[in-house]
Amino acid sequence: MSEISVVMGSKSDWPTVKETCQILDRFGVAYDKNVISAHRMPNEMFAFAQGAVAKGTKVIIACAGGAAHLPGMIAANTPLPVIGIPGQTKTLGGMDSLLSIVQMPAGIPVATTAIGVAGAKNAALLALQILGTTDRAIQDQIIDYRKQMHDAAKESGAHLD
Amino acid sequence: MSEISVVMGSKSDWPTVKETCQILDRFGVAYDKNVISAHRMPNEMFAFAQGAVAKGTKVIIACAGGAAHLPGMIAANTPLPVIGIPGQTKTLGGMDSLLSIVQMPAGIPVATTAIGVAGAKNAALLALQILGTTDRAIQDQIIDYRKQMHDAAKESGAHLD
Amino acid sequence: MSEISVVMGSKSDWPTVKETCQILDRFGVAYDKNVISAHRMPNEMFAFAQGAVAKGTKVIIACAGGAAHLPGMIAANTPLPVIGIPGQTKTLGGMDSLLSIVQMPAGIPVATTAIGVAGAKNAALLALQILGTTDRAIQDQIIDYRKQMHDAAKESGAHLD
Amino acid sequence: MSEISVVMGSKSDWPTVKETCQILDRFGVAYDKNVISAHRMPNEMFAFAQGAVAKGTKVIIACAGGAAHLPGMIAANTPLPVIGIPGQTKTLGGMDSLLSIVQMPAGIPVATTAIGVAGAKNAALLALQILGTTDRAIQDQIIDYRKQMHDAAKESGAHLD
Amino acid sequence: MSEISVVMGSKSDWPTVKETCQILDRFGVAYDKNVISAHRMPNEMFAFAQGAVAKGTKVIIACAGGAAHLPGMIAANTPLPVIGIPGQTKTLGGMDSLLSIVQMPAGIPVATTAIGVAGAKNAALLALQILGTTDRAIQDQIIDYRKQMHDAAKESGAHLD
Amino acid sequence: MSEISVVMGSKSDWPTVKETCQILDRFGVAYDKNVISAHRMPNEMFAFAQGAVAKGTKVIIACAGGAAHLPGMIAANTPLPVIGIPGQTKTLGGMDSLLSIVQMPAGIPVATTAIGVAGAKNAALLALQILGTTDRAIQDQIIDYRKQMHDAAKESGAHLD
Amino acid sequence: MSEISVVMGSKSDWPTVKETCQILDRFGVAYDKNVISAHRMPNEMFAFAQGAVAKGTKVIIACAGGAAHLPGMIAANTPLPVIGIPGQTKTLGGMDSLLSIVQMPAGIPVATTAIGVAGAKNAALLALQILGTTDRAIQDQIIDYRKQMHDAAKESGAHLD
Amino acid sequence: MSEISVVMGSKSDWPTVKETCQILDRFGVAYDKNVISAHRMPNEMFAFAQGAVAKGTKVIIACAGGAAHLPGMIAANTPLPVIGIPGQTKTLGGMDSLLSIVQMPAGIPVATTAIGVAGAKNAALLALQILGTTDRAIQDQIIDYRKQMHDAAKESGAHLD
Repeated sequence: MSEISVVMGSKSDWPTVKETCQILDRFGVAYDKNVISAHRMPNEMFAFAQGAVAKGTKVIIACAGGAAHLPGMIAANTPLPVIGIPGQTKTLGGMDSLLSIVQMPAGIPVATTAIGVAGAKNAALLALQILGTTDRAIQDQIIDYRKQMHDAAKESGAHLD
Repeated sequence: MSEISVVMGSKSDWPTVKETCQILDRFGVAYDKNVISAHRMPNEMFAFAQGAVAKGTKVIIACAGGAAHLPGMIAANTPLPVIGIPGQTKTLGGMDSLLSIVQMPAGIPVATTAIGVAGAKNAALLALQILGTTDRAIQDQIIDYRKQMHDAAKESGAHLD
Repeated sequence: MSEISVVMGSKSDWPTVKETCQILDRFGVAYDKNVISAHRMPNEMFAFAQGAVAKGTKVIIACAGGAAHLPGMIAANTPLPVIGIPGQTKTLGGMDSLLSIVQMPAGIPVATTAIGVAGAKNAALLALQILGTTDRAIQDQIIDYRKQMHDAAKESGAHLD
Repeated sequence: MSEISVVMGSKSDWPTVKETCQILDRFGVAYDKNVISAHRMPNEMFAFAQGAVAKGTKVIIACAGGAAHLPGMIAANTPLPVIGIPGQTKTLGGMDSLLSIVQMPAGIPVATTAIGVAGAKNAALLALQILGTTDRAIQDQIIDYRKQMHDAAKESGAHLD
Repeated sequence: MSEISVVMGSKSDWPTVKETCQILDRFGVAYDKNVISAHRMPNEMFAFAQGAVAKGTKVIIACAGGAAHLPGMIAANTPLPVIGIPGQTKTLGGMDSLLSIVQMPAGIPVATTAIGVAGAKNAALLALQILGTTDRAIQDQIIDYRKQMHDAAKESGAHLD
Repeated sequence: MSEISVVMGSKSDWPTVKETCQILDRFGVAYDKNVISAHRMPNEMFAFAQGAVAKGTKVIIACAGGAAHLPGMIAANTPLPVIGIPGQTKTLGGMDSLLSIVQMPAGIPVATTAIGVAGAKNAALLALQILGTTDRAIQDQIIDYRKQMHDAAKESGAHLD
Repeated sequence: MSEISVVMGSKSDWPTVKETCQILDRFGVAYDKNVISAHRMPNEMFAFAQGAVAKGTKVIIACAGGAAHLPGMIAANTPLPVIGIPGQTKTLGGMDSLLSIVQMPAGIPVATTAIGVAGAKNAALLALQILGTTDRAIQDQIIDYRKQMHDAAKESGAHLD
Repeated sequence: MSEISVVMGSKSDWPTVKETCQILDRFGVAYDKNVISAHRMPNEMFAFAQGAVAKGTKVIIACAGGAAHLPGMIAANTPLPVIGIPGQTKTLGGMDSLLSIVQMPAGIPVATTAIGVAGAKNAALLALQILGTTDRAIQDQIIDYRKQMHDAAKESGAHLD
């Protein structure tokens, strides 16, 4: 059983979402991943969202681009926290994805991260932080991960040429 | 039985959508109207969209603001043409609504009109034009309506002071 | 006689509009296509638009970029539904095309689709949906097309690696 | 006979365009003004534009808002210079009007001024500058007008409190 | 001891953040609230963020406008999930706040909600959803809250006049 | 003596401005061209602008990118009509150039064309149209040029494959 | 003799710039203020900028809106640091002013502050910080000013009701 | 001891910031440079900013992209003038960086330069101008540098082909 579910609106989001999964892998936290298109697989989307609690899922991560309805529609169908990753787009850079995901009406939040790859990585970390609120081991891993980031950033300053 | 269904994501959209209904009233074309929130009434939204063909609906008009998922999610659940009206918003003027509605992925179109009141009126006219493709009486009404707009616009030029 | 007319403002729009035509081809629905520039061929544009009903056209699809006046000016000259495809642009991504097409004043709607290729495909599907409101065979084709999209999307989730 | 023609897409543009006319009045240069809607009066628009040279017009000023097609479509139908004033809009501030007017394709320019009232005044001044290229009296008036602006601006600095 | 901390960058954010607190009150979940300015109280901000885990806080909600650094800087100093509310701004509507909060670099996520009041309400609900992942009573309250929203939305459709 | 002066803010604008010059060459109208940087050559800019009338110049074309002050500052120093070409920029596409040029305050207009190459071509055509208001031969050339554009556009429609 | 010069493009900027002056008054630092319009008083602008060093000025603060050329053109005419305040605008919120001021080409910087009143206050503080780099008394005043801001912000948190 | 400190949020900013350093090298002014990430090295950032005065620093230059908090947070922790360079970003061009840096609240200014490389160069020049307010030799160097830019720009006009 996995506590984190990762879904994307199209297989074309996979290069972005892969970054999410690599972080989860690194933390050794189980997750399931799938393509669930809000517009092409609406019934599956609802079944997925409405069944998530029963399945034992605790956090859902959803990535979509353009008129990105997937995170918000999943959020509308589950009491679980939903994290939305706005996909980068060729025409408007991802501003369309961002506004479609973040501007949710009062009542149904989507925890939105940055556009594209940075957001994909952060979606994983945010999910882990959520699990970490009651799982001390995960919280410790986050602290450790940050220490590594800190050290790498600090170190990098010595190599400006 | 009404061939046009008009829905809005929130009762707060009614002042905008009222303009849609007034045009339909003027043309004497039957329609039903309702509040169907994509995020607060998702099951009703799907039932509505998936049942529209059987009910005899031919065109659906949907208005929503912000992360406006209603038109696109209805479109994903019916083979009928769906017209989307982007609601004006206080923070971003309606750019968020527009991009959430118009930037649909390939496969599921939403016929998007202008932001706010102009778009609400035009949604009615577009629905009538669609019916008018096979209903000569409605097409004639459109031609007549345009003649009246034409005459009023022309007349107005005589009163610049 | 074709019920759908596809026009573009410049031959440079053809790579985009080709996607529209390929969908229409796939559905086996007849259409005519042409370059009609609003700014370089204004008389032809008006003749085209004003003659469309008599020619038996039911839906017009028009693609243009930048200060994209073609869809709106055709719409001003015919009672038929007009679908506008905003072309992607190098400088502003297509935001200019989108606003030029979608922000039509009350009275003359243009059914606007997404910027670029996704919008081009959706313009074809929207035209087919409009014909499908009174042509059961086309509506069935749309339902079938969606089923194929659905199956392909669902299938794609099995191949994330 | 007037060398300057001032047109607007709707009577609702008159409060803006009035500023254009007041400048022309001040300079004592004859002009005609009218409402010509690109979308509601397309035939009149073409007749107006195509007949402008024969009527003795030298410069055309056109104001429109939203999907503002009037200046560009007039420009497409006359070899005369056309000045476009983007109307301010409630939803997007006038960014829609600006992009619809300024982003003309190669071949058909529109001399675009600022959004709203500043642009309306400047459209008059630009038209006068154009006439001034061969009419020394008008050029002298512009020089004089600027001297007055200069003096008023300079003077105003003494009254900051 | 409260599991949710609510902070804002300025007392001027209080009318927005009050909406957050009203939801938390309604759910009967304890929280503390304070003004902590990233730019005027940086040391207090760091002390607050770095001490949050030890204090027993599980989720932090931070609201700020303009160059809104508060949510991101808190996030940089705690392994806890941080929810950011972009404040509406007079000049740019809140686009500045939104981008300052959501576009976090890989490594340090901020769970961003909508601009302004809708985002303030949703920040509370998102915090509750996070607690709800391991607190069945809160999750049940969310389900109940949604049911009430659902019923109110559904009911509202009967009163369109 | 040339009636048209073409200036650019930097040699890096030359690939864009070359398109302006090629149109002027094609029309056989004399022009002078130069690099005049508003920020690096301010005195030369003022001398150029303030001396233009005496030199016999009738229209000035100025191209600049980013915080594009050249067209507006030239306009502030001459009663001649000034045409501004917003250069395309790497970071913001040219939106910065456009707003810096078009949003002139009341009193000092700049006749703004489209961003980049299309605007560069149109600046030449607009200058020619201005000369054409009193030079019938140039106006006839414009009419002829448009006929060629018309024919080429019309022809191009036969080659969609 | 005053080390800080404050100028604005129009008297209409005074309500904004007054905030700059009030901070300078509070710090007891001498300054001169004036209206200098880049477009209506270009010669005075150049004389002002080119004479600033000789007059003993050390920092120049300039506020302008729309196509805001004043800060950049002053910067082009003096080796002194120039601080630019983008004025808020009715149509585009001040995005036009911001881009016109901040996007200066390499070689001529303008130290840009926030749009409108916040930027006006910060322009004063930035000028004081610059003087403070070699004037310990001013730097101490800044430290004290910040302490007061700090205390007021901290205090304000006790009054959320 | 160096009077100028140059920091960047990530080593990926180095290609941009290198341009800053090359100008400082050319002027022969000592500076130190380092990577200090606001989000990954918050304690080092505060230590750096809070210790800058004591170290003898007079001006700080900070570059960051996306939700660019580094310049503003440094500014919040030192009375020294801080110059912010908005990094160009792949998704939004750098509009996110710009707004995150420039829209600082009243009280804590950041002297913002242009997005990307032009801003990086100008940050160096602005720092030098600040030192130049009390260091005549540096001011003379700036005057000389500008003369060289002037001559190169002027010369470049002779080579348009």
